[in-house]
Amino acid sequence: MKSTKPITKDQRPNQRLFVSSDLSSDVLVTLEEGQAHYLVHVLRLSLGVQVLVFNGRDGEWLAELKSISKKSATMQVSQQTRPQDYPADLTLYLAPVKGDRTDFIVEKATELGVAHIRPVLTDRTIVRKLNQDRLSARAVEAAEQCGRLSVPEVAPPVPLSALLCAKMTECVVLFADEAGGCPSIQVALADRPLKVGLLIGPEGGFTPTERRALRACSHIRPVSLGPRILRADTACYAGLVLIQNCWGDWAYSLSCNKA
Amino acid sequence: MKSTKPITKDQRPNQRLFVSSDLSSDVLVTLEEGQAHYLVHVLRLSLGVQVLVFNGRDGEWLAELKSISKKSATMQVSQQTRPQDYPADLTLYLAPVKGDRTDFIVEKATELGVAHIRPVLTDRTIVRKLNQDRLSARAVEAAEQCGRLSVPEVAPPVPLSALLCAKMTECVVLFADEAGGCPSIQVALADRPLKVGLLIGPEGGFTPTERRALRACSHIRPVSLGPRILRADTACYAGLVLIQNCWGDWAYSLSCNKA
Repeated sequence: MKSTKPITKDQRPNQRLFVSSDLSSDVLVTLEEGQAHYLVHVLRLSLGVQVLVFNGRDGEWLAELKSISKKSATMQVSQQTRPQDYPADLTLYLAPVKGDRTDFIVEKATELGVAHIRPVLTDRTIVRKLNQDRLSARAVEAAEQCGRLSVPEVAPPVPLSALLCAKMTECVVLFADEAGGCPSIQVALADRPLKVGLLIGPEGGFTPTERRALRACSHIRPVSLGPRILRADTACYAGLVLIQNCWGDWAYSLSCNKA
Repeated sequence: MKSTKPITKDQRPNQRLFVSSDLSSDVLVTLEEGQAHYLVHVLRLSLGVQVLVFNGRDGEWLAELKSISKKSATMQVSQQTRPQDYPADLTLYLAPVKGDRTDFIVEKATELGVAHIRPVLTDRTIVRKLNQDRLSARAVEAAEQCGRLSVPEVAPPVPLSALLCAKMTECVVLFADEAGGCPSIQVALADRPLKVGLLIGPEGGFTPTERRALRACSHIRPVSLGPRILRADTACYAGLVLIQNCWGDWAYSLSCNKA
């Protein structure tokens, strides 16, 4: 009963919802209060309306709004519309930045297809406390909107030293080195490692000591992000786009388009 | 007296200021009230401090804070540190989006090196009034911060029809077509046009009529921006990064790094 029936673009409901329940044919999914409120009072969906649901494990399914109460709602799952897929093993190691820029970074990193988001505390990191629940909610929202079938985990922050010491097998971490004269991302990933990380420093960049330590690590490679000095959030977007384009799932979808 | 003396990274003042005056050796530049206030009261710079100034025409110069009064300040220009350069002829045609996302797009587009920013009003554009002064100020601030020697002009909005009818010589405009199956930006720019534009639609995308009209224009080419549905602001960043990487000034700086 788990055969996937692809639906056409016109048949696709606009609304996608990330749920925690297991998904299979005819199963009833109970939505928690927040999601029920969102569907019924914000989107004003009524009984019988179809939405798409996914949980990061069982692919994407059609589901119909079956009942609404004050504090919850239930949906009946019908057919699978897409089988589960998994993003390229790409991690964003991100020194948190001020204001709502960290929230935007989580949103964009999700759209750009990262598998994991790991905040990193460096010497010059000013923002040292993060609201992980808020960031995770932003990742869920972005995943629902951009059509992906999984939500990147927003992990608790670690100090930069943890990244330096880590025994990372088959993983290459790129860091944007402002010193210049570094290879492009394409060149740095020419040996096509199995896992890739992108490390972006805080507003003030890395300290000279941190840069020396990063450059001394065999699994960390300095890269250049063009001729101008990019803000931390811009550097995240630029780095992730270039990684996806030459190594990740854009490389795959684009080479298909070329053929 | 206009020979450029490059200064080392350690000698470079942190503060860069965009001014309207002509710049040459020994000239006195009078700052307007807003800039004087910013230097003296926000940055707390005192007499004798050096900053870098640029005006988009005469390159970048060292200047020293010479006098401060309540409503203005003067700076004496000394030596040129970089000759004027000009960005690749890249225009962002942007349907304004809600909230502060348009401001962020102007900031990032400036950092990513666009020459012109032209808001475009489409059928589904919700935000139809723009505060051009605020957007221009954001472009100035981003240019000062990212080290570029010119500020992209934020032009007044035009309807999409103006872009469709325009006789654009030697210019290719790329638009992100959600229909899929389009070539990558690398493939679309393989003939290396002299001028490039990137057109990004509003939150709801282009209407079917608009898409047909865009596809019928000889100077407009559909491109793919990866396998997920990107928000308008994310699409701007992704498109500009990929254009700069294969066609613009990143291509140049990166091929130098490779050599």
